[in-house]
Amino acid sequence: MRDVYDAAYQGRPGAFSEMAAWEMLGESARLLPYDDLEDVFAWVGNGNPKYGVVPIENTNGGSIHRTYDLFHEKGLVHIVGETVRKIEHSLIAGEGMSLSDVREVYSHPQALAQCSQFFHTHRRFFKGVAAFDTAGAVEKVIRKELKFSAAIAHRRNAEIYGGVVLADNIQNTENFTRFLLITREGEAKIDPTRSTKATIVFHLKHNPGALSKALQPFASRGINLTKIESMPRRGNPFEYEFYVDVVAEPGKADNISKAITEVKRFTTWLGVLGIYPAWRGEK
Amino acid sequence: MRDVYDAAYQGRPGAFSEMAAWEMLGESARLLPYDDLEDVFAWVGNGNPKYGVVPIENTNGGSIHRTYDLFHEKGLVHIVGETVRKIEHSLIAGEGMSLSDVREVYSHPQALAQCSQFFHTHRRFFKGVAAFDTAGAVEKVIRKELKFSAAIAHRRNAEIYGGVVLADNIQNTENFTRFLLITREGEAKIDPTRSTKATIVFHLKHNPGALSKALQPFASRGINLTKIESMPRRGNPFEYEFYVDVVAEPGKADNISKAITEVKRFTTWLGVLGIYPAWRGEK
Repeated sequence: MRDVYDAAYQGRPGAFSEMAAWEMLGESARLLPYDDLEDVFAWVGNGNPKYGVVPIENTNGGSIHRTYDLFHEKGLVHIVGETVRKIEHSLIAGEGMSLSDVREVYSHPQALAQCSQFFHTHRRFFKGVAAFDTAGAVEKVIRKELKFSAAIAHRRNAEIYGGVVLADNIQNTENFTRFLLITREGEAKIDPTRSTKATIVFHLKHNPGALSKALQPFASRGINLTKIESMPRRGNPFEYEFYVDVVAEPGKADNISKAITEVKRFTTWLGVLGIYPAWRGEK
Repeated sequence: MRDVYDAAYQGRPGAFSEMAAWEMLGESARLLPYDDLEDVFAWVGNGNPKYGVVPIENTNGGSIHRTYDLFHEKGLVHIVGETVRKIEHSLIAGEGMSLSDVREVYSHPQALAQCSQFFHTHRRFFKGVAAFDTAGAVEKVIRKELKFSAAIAHRRNAEIYGGVVLADNIQNTENFTRFLLITREGEAKIDPTRSTKATIVFHLKHNPGALSKALQPFASRGINLTKIESMPRRGNPFEYEFYVDVVAEPGKADNISKAITEVKRFTTWLGVLGIYPAWRGEK
């Protein structure tokens, strides 16, 4: 019998984070919904639930800065896994509704933005209303039997909350969200048959070329850079910190720690948010 | 007498983009409000109005990917200037309203997010409602005399639309937005007494260390990197393009073009979105 773990995610049953949690922990995990991302970090940082599943970036919207900030603010959790999910949105309403009845559309602001072209086409008829999450929007529209209202969420929510799908795949373009598995204690199990990813953040010494030099230790060990982003430092909006994801080939995970030791020569501060198996689907 | 230009911005009178346009073009510029960012790019790309003012990044929310995308999609405009504005939000309502009357708060989803702590404190009482822009939210709440409703926007909008400020400086933290001045034709006037910035985008050849090598030509000429971000390529979510801002010291603008020529040796494609005077306030 395999272990069963508790895991926290932000949103309601049916949220994309819940599906990402299933994928990483298996359907036997006990998945616990939380209202706020802050709470997921706070409780997992407390040690119970053991795991949390949080979104970190979206191919349309970019990095989720709030998530990066929470790693800093809470400072107690690290990354032990990742997965990537395709984001598909449907327009969902209560039984008996048809597309022409819809006047208001509820969803998370990011989901509303991800369907902006669908809105653009129908803008004379639809008004977007912000909700805290996509599944919660469906729950609200259906349980409260809101007249003239629909919600944007994954089609699975129509089954969960007992609604109908009025329009399917209404997202603007192909759209993927990357989710991280976080925990307080315990290292990720590095699998020698899989690529290993590391997420690090650092502050550079002030000189031209500092970034180029800081990346060189990865380059010289054949470690690929898969993501880089400068972000303004809190309190110093014109000072930057750099978030970097790097990937080592199967069997070469050790090179990452060696490279990080060298990178530190060019930084004034460096934090490792996690070293973990890279998502299998990623090339 | 100085020239007077037409300039397009997204939003209504009172929007932060309008204030950024004044700052860059002077108060005598004729500023024209447009509903959509798409329209600003389309009309400026058409040559009339001559200028557009668009947000590109925010210290809380990060890069505005839609703006970067529109440089690609429209492909007709380039950057000739930049400015940075502090974003300050107030809660504004019609005359006679008080804070305890407010049940619904209208604003752009990003502005709602930027005031999330204010919302968190009052969440039992306030419901956020998404609007297309901050000034438009104030206009709606006041002109339609919406009961129990307020809007989040810069306090200036209370004067413009005839409302009252119920709460001031309700944004979570210090928060700055960077705006770009775009045009179809004509180069930026490089001022030898000011730093010069360049915004470039490129695709790298596939090999470890490609990014480190591609940044080296800037480093060797003493050109500072002020922003870097990898973004998934449209259509190829697991291929990346790199957006980079670099700054040369006053009098050394020529070094930028020389460095770019060298950088091309390490890229499969490189585009220059603009070479322009850096904002004076930035260190």
